[in-house]
Amino acid sequence: MPNYKIDFKPVIEKINKKNIKIIALQIPEGLKHYSYTIVEHLKKNINSEIIVVADPCFGACDIADNELGKIGAELIIHLGHTPILNSKKYAIPVEFVNAFSSIDIKKVINNSLKYLKGKKIKIVTTAQHIHKLDEVKKILENHNFNAIISKGNERIAFEGQVLGCNFSVSLSNNEDYDCILFLGSGTFHPLGLILNSKKPVVVADPYTNTVKKDEIEDLKDQILRQRYGAIANSKNSKIFGILVGLKTGQQRIKLVNEIKKLLIDHQKKYLIISMNYFLPTSLEGFRDIDCFVSTACPRIAIDDYLKYKKPIITPIELEILLDKRVWEDYEFDQIL
Amino acid sequence: MPNYKIDFKPVIEKINKKNIKIIALQIPEGLKHYSYTIVEHLKKNINSEIIVVADPCFGACDIADNELGKIGAELIIHLGHTPILNSKKYAIPVEFVNAFSSIDIKKVINNSLKYLKGKKIKIVTTAQHIHKLDEVKKILENHNFNAIISKGNERIAFEGQVLGCNFSVSLSNNEDYDCILFLGSGTFHPLGLILNSKKPVVVADPYTNTVKKDEIEDLKDQILRQRYGAIANSKNSKIFGILVGLKTGQQRIKLVNEIKKLLIDHQKKYLIISMNYFLPTSLEGFRDIDCFVSTACPRIAIDDYLKYKKPIITPIELEILLDKRVWEDYEFDQIL
Repeated sequence: MPNYKIDFKPVIEKINKKNIKIIALQIPEGLKHYSYTIVEHLKKNINSEIIVVADPCFGACDIADNELGKIGAELIIHLGHTPILNSKKYAIPVEFVNAFSSIDIKKVINNSLKYLKGKKIKIVTTAQHIHKLDEVKKILENHNFNAIISKGNERIAFEGQVLGCNFSVSLSNNEDYDCILFLGSGTFHPLGLILNSKKPVVVADPYTNTVKKDEIEDLKDQILRQRYGAIANSKNSKIFGILVGLKTGQQRIKLVNEIKKLLIDHQKKYLIISMNYFLPTSLEGFRDIDCFVSTACPRIAIDDYLKYKKPIITPIELEILLDKRVWEDYEFDQIL
Repeated sequence: MPNYKIDFKPVIEKINKKNIKIIALQIPEGLKHYSYTIVEHLKKNINSEIIVVADPCFGACDIADNELGKIGAELIIHLGHTPILNSKKYAIPVEFVNAFSSIDIKKVINNSLKYLKGKKIKIVTTAQHIHKLDEVKKILENHNFNAIISKGNERIAFEGQVLGCNFSVSLSNNEDYDCILFLGSGTFHPLGLILNSKKPVVVADPYTNTVKKDEIEDLKDQILRQRYGAIANSKNSKIFGILVGLKTGQQRIKLVNEIKKLLIDHQKKYLIISMNYFLPTSLEGFRDIDCFVSTACPRIAIDDYLKYKKPIITPIELEILLDKRVWEDYEFDQIL
């Protein structure tokens, strides 16, 4: 597979030691077109039958352990995401195999240097570039920056790693620093980092060889305006739908109960609604609901806001709506 | 609720006898806009918290027992579908509550009489009109028809009932008859009935007060042409994706293994792919697959054929493709 290094050897050894008949393979969207190649490779080395999971898989929260166990899978190979360390036990064993991007990062990191603010730089990335952080650190140090790589909270597997639902790396160890350098693509992680840390964030995207800083500031302002609007528009909502995710790593039942209590205390009505796969059409039938509060993946309210016909807000945004928190203390929702 | 009669009393009594803290409620799409009303009604009579399931629910095959059990639900109320009698045990108890349509059927049945062929008429319907079959029978008998109501195989709950995946009512008891009168809306059930029984099917739709007969014949021809095309277009396929459903009532593992063997015997390659929620986009990543064979809900290949970029065929259609069955013996796939 071009651009990725995947080491299946340890998991192949484990499988061959046990006599496993059926394995399930969860592959993230970006790698799904290699499914057949990956299965061919595995079958050359193991005797198990392999079932590839087609349902989209957005992270390590998204393990279909129960369903796959029910159709006979004895083990899940979960590709491309790192384990969430304090998560509960799975119905069947799960082996996480990282997919390391082999794309070169030197050029884009060198290009990013002139955008960095101050001298103490926190370096952050996602699972697929985690093995490149030492190289980034060296480049920064060669240019007289003080590069910091530190670990987020107990859910996070690697030093320097950020998840789409967990930006704790930006506040870890109470370290003081001037700026974050994010190695990776997309805007959601940088957005979470800038909102959580209140520091400048420089994005170095090795796929497009582009560096962004002002764009992230602008996007932050745009998203904050949108979130402010979503909260303001829902001020007079009478009936709230509290959304609870059914995916293994997204079931925040305690939070559902807190929200329910909060709504009752504020003379609001509620309906608790569970969802496995979040689709705008699945909520369209709930015509009595004025506003949805999502306790599932924190990204849904932010990323997919415009796809839903009625406002979806996060639990933190509900606190602002009910005057339990001031707008100035706005934060991205996280699973911590 | 207008147009529907739902008797929650027996299930309310059961719930009040046990001390159930959390109930999950699965509601079919057509009734979802009554969710809040239904929950309000239930909460007046029971002390349990209620979680409504937002994920689309297409039948009694579609019980989210495992996932709902994991978020604390102790019982599922499954509305609008009848139990599938020989299905496996659920992870938590499931109470099926039927939603009986209160729409009048006299007019449309009277209108349908002139379309009926012969004198021995088999009357068939779906769960929501099942309580009207005696009335239909009487109207037919008053007009000197011999009206037959009989029960399908052991999966079927009621006499005269047809499911979207089970047309066994049309062949039950080896009865001889001249024509089927289907009370209900939509075209899928009539299509399955006409293909399975090889008898004329008259559709009496009480919602639109329309009767159809020739249209069903035409649709049958059109669908058969489409299916013939799907099979012909996939003749040279080298790699087949065998789709296995993860929904409780759609896991046909034995069939998956039979298909796998059949493909191997014919020097074809295969990839087993599991899916919970069937979405065309979830299959788009599988670029190496030439043709998908679905063992999940039999309706997917037929109803949603045009939504998928690559052909999806049924297990029976694969037999035709591999010359194990002749086209003249074409049948709709069923879960029997």
